[in-house]
Amino acid sequence: MSTVWKSRYALRTLRTKGSTIRELLKLTQRPEIISFGGGLPAPEVFPVERFEEACRRVLEKHGAQALQYGATEGYEPLRETIAQNMARYGVLAKAENVLITTGSQQALDLIGKLLINSGDRVLVEAPTYLGALQAFNVYGAQFISVPLDDDGLRTDLLESTLRLSPKLMYILPNFQNPAGVTLSEERRHQLIFLADRYGIPIIEDDPYGQLRYEGEHLTPLVVLDYKTLRHHDGRPPGNVLYLSTFSKTLAPGIRLAWIVAPSDVITRLALLKQAADLHTATFNQIVAYEVAKDGFLDQHVKLIRQVYRERRDVMLHALEEFFPSEVTWTHPQGGLFLWVTMPEGIDCRLLFRAALAEHVAFVPGDCFYANATPEECRHMRLNFSFSEPEQIREGIRRLSVAVKAHIRTPRTSLEAVGC
Amino acid sequence: MSTVWKSRYALRTLRTKGSTIRELLKLTQRPEIISFGGGLPAPEVFPVERFEEACRRVLEKHGAQALQYGATEGYEPLRETIAQNMARYGVLAKAENVLITTGSQQALDLIGKLLINSGDRVLVEAPTYLGALQAFNVYGAQFISVPLDDDGLRTDLLESTLRLSPKLMYILPNFQNPAGVTLSEERRHQLIFLADRYGIPIIEDDPYGQLRYEGEHLTPLVVLDYKTLRHHDGRPPGNVLYLSTFSKTLAPGIRLAWIVAPSDVITRLALLKQAADLHTATFNQIVAYEVAKDGFLDQHVKLIRQVYRERRDVMLHALEEFFPSEVTWTHPQGGLFLWVTMPEGIDCRLLFRAALAEHVAFVPGDCFYANATPEECRHMRLNFSFSEPEQIREGIRRLSVAVKAHIRTPRTSLEAVGC
Repeated sequence: MSTVWKSRYALRTLRTKGSTIRELLKLTQRPEIISFGGGLPAPEVFPVERFEEACRRVLEKHGAQALQYGATEGYEPLRETIAQNMARYGVLAKAENVLITTGSQQALDLIGKLLINSGDRVLVEAPTYLGALQAFNVYGAQFISVPLDDDGLRTDLLESTLRLSPKLMYILPNFQNPAGVTLSEERRHQLIFLADRYGIPIIEDDPYGQLRYEGEHLTPLVVLDYKTLRHHDGRPPGNVLYLSTFSKTLAPGIRLAWIVAPSDVITRLALLKQAADLHTATFNQIVAYEVAKDGFLDQHVKLIRQVYRERRDVMLHALEEFFPSEVTWTHPQGGLFLWVTMPEGIDCRLLFRAALAEHVAFVPGDCFYANATPEECRHMRLNFSFSEPEQIREGIRRLSVAVKAHIRTPRTSLEAVGC
Repeated sequence: MSTVWKSRYALRTLRTKGSTIRELLKLTQRPEIISFGGGLPAPEVFPVERFEEACRRVLEKHGAQALQYGATEGYEPLRETIAQNMARYGVLAKAENVLITTGSQQALDLIGKLLINSGDRVLVEAPTYLGALQAFNVYGAQFISVPLDDDGLRTDLLESTLRLSPKLMYILPNFQNPAGVTLSEERRHQLIFLADRYGIPIIEDDPYGQLRYEGEHLTPLVVLDYKTLRHHDGRPPGNVLYLSTFSKTLAPGIRLAWIVAPSDVITRLALLKQAADLHTATFNQIVAYEVAKDGFLDQHVKLIRQVYRERRDVMLHALEEFFPSEVTWTHPQGGLFLWVTMPEGIDCRLLFRAALAEHVAFVPGDCFYANATPEECRHMRLNFSFSEPEQIREGIRRLSVAVKAHIRTPRTSLEAVGC
């Protein structure tokens, strides 16, 4: 009988595909597998006791409010805190410029809903965040890509793509997912200049911005947009929507993120959010506010940086030690991922199966392209935040076994893993 | 500069409107107003201590899991619990038939995404739940309506509308929002028979099903579908998707609801949910599981029934006492709302302003129609769950002052409140 539904699916449903990451998240639950697959934070750094204390305080003092319906835009003190925190990075925002979302994935979904008509072009980095491809794909986006190198988006190749009049650009400037690279200061200026010249707005996704392990903090695009452009009418600028999240600094299991935007855009997004989930859980918002306050968040981020820097270094050293010289990888200054490139002719979708047999997992790189070419199948994304240092070393050793065997005799079977 | 966005809004954004309820939720925060507007549960019955205990236990025992990313389909033990609870009402479901959603509003959004192409007809009751109109409107639904009476949907008028081949029917069989009426057993059979004959699937939205204050529980449509239809191939039936929520039995501020559907439909919905918000907050799901378990939920629902039954009765008595005889209202057997009908020629959007001046609020009935006729503007929805008995009596007294003055000299100004 369920065929009554199948025959009635909307067009967008028919173009929705599953993702490898989703399957990989399941694999991480098998204890024998060391997974570099998911983008999971280290559970060891979750501030569990602080959460416990906050839950108790919130329920005792604000129980009736925390368990009740709330405003679609979000819990006002949390919006204010976020606006204040953003100001430290030079982002001029008031509470009215902040919309609380149910994780950054919802921010992407709402932005897709707000802007994308079926067939609209969307400019993305190649590779880019899989979740953004999925979110925009639902609304019928036609992706056009600009490649990355070690300094992030190749702004020298941007102009010809901008002439195709994309509806928007989706950019991850810091410690990019999946490539781990950071957009240089010079290219940030070029990007803002070109965005203004061609009138193409930017979605700046910055989930990892605070997790920098070396080098200097670079100016967010939303700030450059403000500083660089002449705003004749004195209104605040607004060519960039900025996204960030508590998933990597507090915990992903509470699903709390935010969009910073001009207030008229926030009003529109809030209407769409109202139809999407009414509002983000009141309880979670008040608890996160209590957890973050009095400088706790800053202190906690310092701890996370310490832990993740060590894990990144362990992974980089293990790669040096175990991997054959034909393989290369990025050196991320922050974030959760690094990006490995195999010699020509290697297909990481096939390598994935071999790695699983060695009890180690990663995400094949083709998942991060709108339409991967064979050339783009020779990458893999490795996460270094989730596993403990010992496991990271052992995992890279196991992976090197699969890699070496595969480089010697690449499998050509099509029994690969799909995205 | 923010005009760069406005000129780029998608078509669906341009057809999205705000709602009166949203503004009303803000009014409820003004202490001088007695609000019968929002659909808020009584905060006095929130099981705050039980939540506190559950949060402590969850963070102590499962902190790392509760704060981490989770599966898109939901927390397995919660899915199983829901499936078991549904079985008591005759709904045959396993965990694989349950998708956890971020409130029922997300369930409606996902169903719209799954099924509705722009221009598709959607059959709704007149009046119907505003949130469903908003959710389906985003996807370009063309609404066609069938009126209600005291026994729910007028199934005698259904057939001619089914001949227009709607993509789906959206039905609230129990203690309907906004009208407070319940679909009779006989009409449930007729509805299932006609749905099968014309091959039009049903979305059964049942947020209040457990909150019955008198009379007998009636069979859910999803069960009738199963029992009535001949399933030649032995597969389970699936002409009805069933929606329910913890918002009215535990608390709305945790945003937890669910869809029951054939497992292939759940798989498709999960893909769309993954792109929409990755998954519902793990923490909230594990906490709700801990709160509900060991029979607590059943016990707690008994308490809620007691409290709301009293409030309903107080409102019914106050209406009898204070309202003029030309005004009529429904007698809900459960739920949160009753529906008031003014004499012909009265416009409740104008009455709304007069009521506010008396410090009492309601939702004008036109908000609950896809396209309200002048005739349909003479209704108002009153919520009886939120205010305490004393306030309910006083609020109805205040409202009666506005009503009587308005019936004597109806305002004809267009300075009304929009939806």
